[in-house]
Amino acid sequence: IDTEDWNALKDVIGKLPTIEIVEILEKLEEQDLLLVFELFSKKEKAQIFGEFSRDLQYQIFNKLDKRAFSKIFEDMRSDERADFYQELTLEEQTSLLPYLNKQVRSNVVELSAYDSDSAGGIMTTDFATVRVWMTVREAVDKIKIDSPGKKMIYYVYVVDDEKVLLGFITLKDLILADLSDKIADLLHVDYVAAKVNDDRERAARMIEKYDLVALPILNDDHKLVGIVRHDDAIEVIVAEQTEDMEKMMGITSSNDEGDDEGYMDISVFRHFKKRVVWLVSLAIVGMISGLILHHFEAALDQMVILALYMPMLADTGGNAGSQASTVIIRALSLGEVTVKDWWTITFKEMRISILLAVCLSSIAFIKVSLLSFDTLLPGTLTLSYVAFIISLALALQVVSSTIIGAGLPIIVRKFNGDPAVVASPAITTIVDITGLLIYFSLATAFLLQV
Amino acid sequence: IDTEDWNALKDVIGKLPTIEIVEILEKLEEQDLLLVFELFSKKEKAQIFGEFSRDLQYQIFNKLDKRAFSKIFEDMRSDERADFYQELTLEEQTSLLPYLNKQVRSNVVELSAYDSDSAGGIMTTDFATVRVWMTVREAVDKIKIDSPGKKMIYYVYVVDDEKVLLGFITLKDLILADLSDKIADLLHVDYVAAKVNDDRERAARMIEKYDLVALPILNDDHKLVGIVRHDDAIEVIVAEQTEDMEKMMGITSSNDEGDDEGYMDISVFRHFKKRVVWLVSLAIVGMISGLILHHFEAALDQMVILALYMPMLADTGGNAGSQASTVIIRALSLGEVTVKDWWTITFKEMRISILLAVCLSSIAFIKVSLLSFDTLLPGTLTLSYVAFIISLALALQVVSSTIIGAGLPIIVRKFNGDPAVVASPAITTIVDITGLLIYFSLATAFLLQV
Repeated sequence: IDTEDWNALKDVIGKLPTIEIVEILEKLEEQDLLLVFELFSKKEKAQIFGEFSRDLQYQIFNKLDKRAFSKIFEDMRSDERADFYQELTLEEQTSLLPYLNKQVRSNVVELSAYDSDSAGGIMTTDFATVRVWMTVREAVDKIKIDSPGKKMIYYVYVVDDEKVLLGFITLKDLILADLSDKIADLLHVDYVAAKVNDDRERAARMIEKYDLVALPILNDDHKLVGIVRHDDAIEVIVAEQTEDMEKMMGITSSNDEGDDEGYMDISVFRHFKKRVVWLVSLAIVGMISGLILHHFEAALDQMVILALYMPMLADTGGNAGSQASTVIIRALSLGEVTVKDWWTITFKEMRISILLAVCLSSIAFIKVSLLSFDTLLPGTLTLSYVAFIISLALALQVVSSTIIGAGLPIIVRKFNGDPAVVASPAITTIVDITGLLIYFSLATAFLLQV
Repeated sequence: IDTEDWNALKDVIGKLPTIEIVEILEKLEEQDLLLVFELFSKKEKAQIFGEFSRDLQYQIFNKLDKRAFSKIFEDMRSDERADFYQELTLEEQTSLLPYLNKQVRSNVVELSAYDSDSAGGIMTTDFATVRVWMTVREAVDKIKIDSPGKKMIYYVYVVDDEKVLLGFITLKDLILADLSDKIADLLHVDYVAAKVNDDRERAARMIEKYDLVALPILNDDHKLVGIVRHDDAIEVIVAEQTEDMEKMMGITSSNDEGDDEGYMDISVFRHFKKRVVWLVSLAIVGMISGLILHHFEAALDQMVILALYMPMLADTGGNAGSQASTVIIRALSLGEVTVKDWWTITFKEMRISILLAVCLSSIAFIKVSLLSFDTLLPGTLTLSYVAFIISLALALQVVSSTIIGAGLPIIVRKFNGDPAVVASPAITTIVDITGLLIYFSLATAFLLQV
């Protein structure tokens, strides 16, 4: 590679899939990268550039002169083009626009106006349309004229004079048909479509549900304005899953961040910001458990053995509650259950938790008996009685934590919130409080009054 | 619907997308369902049947006579057919086989032999192949003969006499080409493919990475044996994601369960089994923290104030550790970081955790000062000194928990384990132990000796 035999190099890597070329290029020094990048054709450059990370795209944008860059830019996929354009400063945007041809210019401005969380924000305008009165031969001719420069097409959309969507035909239909067949006879009218302002996750889920390769996107007048591709849908689904998981651990995501930013791209301070909000909120809520403990300080003073098993109670409750909330959050987000099922869910979780409580409190009983055999107990208390009360507290804690863990996501969804926010850290903190209340209520009632 | 005007009904719902027909049918009583189901053509029945839940499929299979069922079965997608066939008992399988035509019979037996976790287990054999020496006209003719009965095709694969994969062409290539063009000139040789025995997640991730509509699956001799479709890839990605999330909460998944079983389909006892394993293991590991506390019982006896802030230390450590482990597990599974980055990650997490520690220990200092202002302290200790030592313990706990949370998934991955197992519940239990050691070491060193 360092022998500067560029042509040989081009021959070798030019045959690889685009994404692998990108992976190789991203490892090069900037100088080499630009040299190798120049070896590719305009069309290849556009494809490669589209797959680069945001930072690298910006770097190359600054190195190339605007006229050369505009040629690459014009050949990019319309959605990737708009995404990149959105990241530029106003000044940079206006420095680029004059070099673009009129069609690309208006397309970029139009696409980048959509909110990146909407279907419009992830759609591309690279699709082919034909008219319902055409024959297959005329349709094929129109596609040949319209789309050789565009990336892969799968469906051909059939629109009327006003660009209102009538239906679609697949490329397979076109190939299997005779050239003299009418488009009208091939037309599928059972299409599904999303609106530009729909949430991008909704659009992605439709692609998943209906097993589509692309989903047509309509404006409010039912006119076809773009399509969302299956690969962009996968990206959205993966990104939303990451967001869900992070939310479940109390990690906030800032709105201004790109979906393709990985762990390494995010600075220490931004990682800190993402995590600190929830940790601090929970620490403040945690004051409540501090207050409760403070209230029972005398009880603790009298029976230090109670302090020894506090962590066990808190951990087990936290774990059981987190499990329940994870299962329910996932089931809600996959649509397996809805808010209306609340009673079925609560009843089911109650039965599950009773089984869990029996197991775990037996273990707790054995644990207390083994670990505290030499503890001095006040008054006439026996160790097995104390162990029994502690196990009972644990059993109640498991049941209540499981029901709280399952119930909170449903309540949050009921009020149109995102259930993922009440996952692990929140549940842990909440069941800590209920756990302490259960524990000390039982202890003061049955142990201290003796 | 109850007026028994079946033809009108068929006209209304027959126009909907298959999945919506399925949703309507699934809500009907069994009797009505069978009547409505009979209204559809053999091909429609096959599509609808393929989308039914496993239970409903089985119900219908038992209601129809084997000959009628075999006609539907033959028209199903090959992967859905094999999945259903795998669920039948040996007896049921052998009762069905004689009614199938030879081609379908051998195809079903072959496909259902693959492990359902492998690429072979999710692939379909519904694909079209052409030969490299054909012209476009000949290729289109072959496709017309081979595939009208099959579902959507996107790529046409080019194979040699031995069925070894040479490359592919897209339907778009075929449409844009002239009929006299040679397939050899259109051939894309930069294809990616997976092996039948590859993990199904690997195949799905390749489809995601290379933005494919379908991925060719080869046997060990490089012969093309099937394709994995983009929609099956999405299903796999979503299912693996659920599994990851559940694993992170210590929920085990049994191997014998179908991917399409939702929360409601799983019995109370199976939910219990899925959750109990980890809860019990953690309860047993939790004995270690019991032992540690037992060891420091005297210290607790002397200063009850220490007991009051134990939960705060445990919770904050657990939350910080869980966040770090979630972020790292996700980054590992998306390939954003690898085991080799361990030092960069550790260093980064250390800096993040120091920032978090400063925030959280300041809050802890304020908390102790506010809540315990009236606590009697032994000897010459001042409250601010005690609060300072507790905050210091918390700061150390946040840093160590974060580094443990980030480090454990990397270590597990290093030894080829699944990092998701060391998430929230495991981390919480582990950092509880380290937290108690830090807390009581500091306390005995700085508070009790005075």
